[in-house]
Amino acid sequence: MMDAAPLHDIRIVLCHTSHPGNIGGAARAMKTMGLDRLHLVGPKRFPSEEAEAMAAHATDVLHSASVHPGLDQALNGTVFAAACTARSRDLSHAVLTARETAARLVHEAARGPVALVFGPEKYGLTVEEVNRCSVIAMVPANPHYSSLNLAAAVQIFAYEVHLAAQAIDTYPQEVFEPAPYQDLERLFEHLEQTLYDIEFLDPKNPKRLMRRLRRLFQRARLEREEVNILRGILAAAQKRQR
Amino acid sequence: MMDAAPLHDIRIVLCHTSHPGNIGGAARAMKTMGLDRLHLVGPKRFPSEEAEAMAAHATDVLHSASVHPGLDQALNGTVFAAACTARSRDLSHAVLTARETAARLVHEAARGPVALVFGPEKYGLTVEEVNRCSVIAMVPANPHYSSLNLAAAVQIFAYEVHLAAQAIDTYPQEVFEPAPYQDLERLFEHLEQTLYDIEFLDPKNPKRLMRRLRRLFQRARLEREEVNILRGILAAAQKRQR
Repeated sequence: MMDAAPLHDIRIVLCHTSHPGNIGGAARAMKTMGLDRLHLVGPKRFPSEEAEAMAAHATDVLHSASVHPGLDQALNGTVFAAACTARSRDLSHAVLTARETAARLVHEAARGPVALVFGPEKYGLTVEEVNRCSVIAMVPANPHYSSLNLAAAVQIFAYEVHLAAQAIDTYPQEVFEPAPYQDLERLFEHLEQTLYDIEFLDPKNPKRLMRRLRRLFQRARLEREEVNILRGILAAAQKRQR
Repeated sequence: MMDAAPLHDIRIVLCHTSHPGNIGGAARAMKTMGLDRLHLVGPKRFPSEEAEAMAAHATDVLHSASVHPGLDQALNGTVFAAACTARSRDLSHAVLTARETAARLVHEAARGPVALVFGPEKYGLTVEEVNRCSVIAMVPANPHYSSLNLAAAVQIFAYEVHLAAQAIDTYPQEVFEPAPYQDLERLFEHLEQTLYDIEFLDPKNPKRLMRRLRRLFQRARLEREEVNILRGILAAAQKRQR
C-alpha cells in the first residue's frame, strides 16, 4: 500500500476561483485520490452552498481548507511548486506533463510541503504567479481545445499523484536541501535592491529583468546554503557602494 | 501528431445520467482530449440548459450526441466495450485500470468502434449492463472514498485514451536556447574576478566556493541571453569598485 505521508504534504492551491462549485468539485477530486490539503487564494465566494453540494462526501477537505489573501501566503513553507497552465506562456520555465509533475511532487514532498497551483477559470495564472513556482505543469490535451474544467484538471493531477505515490519507493534519492519559498523571496528582494545600488537596474523598467532573473534561479532549485552564499555576495557588492 | 482516427472510433456511453450538468461536463472532458462520440442511454433530462452551460465550448459534442432507449442500442456495432465501475461487483470479468483500459481501447479501435460505458451517478451500472461489456475498468482511487464525480471519471479515462493514442513525440516542447560551453566558462571567470574585486572571495581558498557556484549555474541550464544579463550585472558591480 502507498505511504500516506507524501500525500499530506501536497497542497492544492486554487487562485481566485470564480465558481464556488469548482472549489467543491476540486475537494471531491482530491479526496478520491487521498489528497486533503486545500489552499484557497482570494476565492470569489467561500464558504458556499454550491461548494458543499459539489464536494459530496468530501466536505471535510472543504472545511479544513486554508484561505489566503495572496499566493505568497499559500506557498509559505513549501520547497517546490508547480504552476498548472493550459498554454505555456513562459518558455524559460521547465514544462512537465501531468505525469512527470506528479512524480516530481511526490519525490520533492519527501523534503517538505509542495504545491500544485491552479489559476482562475477564465484567465489562468498570471506571469507573476507562475514566476513564484519552480516548474510549469501541463495536461497533454487536444491542441484545438485544451480548456479543461478546473475541477477536472485537479482530478487528473490528483489521479497522477495518487499513482505516483504508490510507486514512490522506486525513485532514486538525492541529498538535497532546497531553500524554502520565503528564503527565495527574500533573496529576490535583496537582489533587486543590490541591482539598484550598483546602478544596473533601469528604475523605469525593473520588472522585465527581475522576472528573468527569478526564472533563472527558480530553475536552478537553489539549496538553502546557496541562498546564503548568494546573499553574502550581494551584501559584499552593496557594502562597496557605500 | 496523434492519429485522430482511433479517437473517433471510441464512444463514451453514459447510462441513465441523473444530472444534466454531468452530461455537459462529460462532453467538455471528451473534447479536451479529442473524443467526440457521445452516446446517451435514457438520460433523465436531455437536451438541457445545464448541460449546455457545463459543456462550455464543447456544445458540438453535445449536439451530435446519440440518444438511445437502452445500452443494447448504444453498443450496436462495437467490437469491444469496457464497463466503468467504482467497485468490482462481478469477479468473472477481467478488471483493468484506467491506463490499461485506455491502451486496450485504442488497440481494439483499429478493428472497429469501441465503447467506454458509465452508469448513473448514484448506483453505477447494473450487473446486466456490466455483462454486456468485455471488461471492467476501474480508476485506482482512495480505498476509503472512491466515488468520483461522473464527469471527472470521464475526464480521467479520456485523458488516458488521449495519451494512449498519442505518438511519443507529442510531448510539450520547450523553446530554450542553452548557452554554449565557452560562454559559461567565460561567465565563471568573470564571476570569480568580480568576487575578488568586491572582496567576497577568500583568496586563500577560492576553489570551494567557485565549485558550488558552478554547480548552481550548471543546474540552471543557463540560456545565452541569461549569461549576457549576468555578465552585465558583474560588469556593473566591478565598475563601482574603481
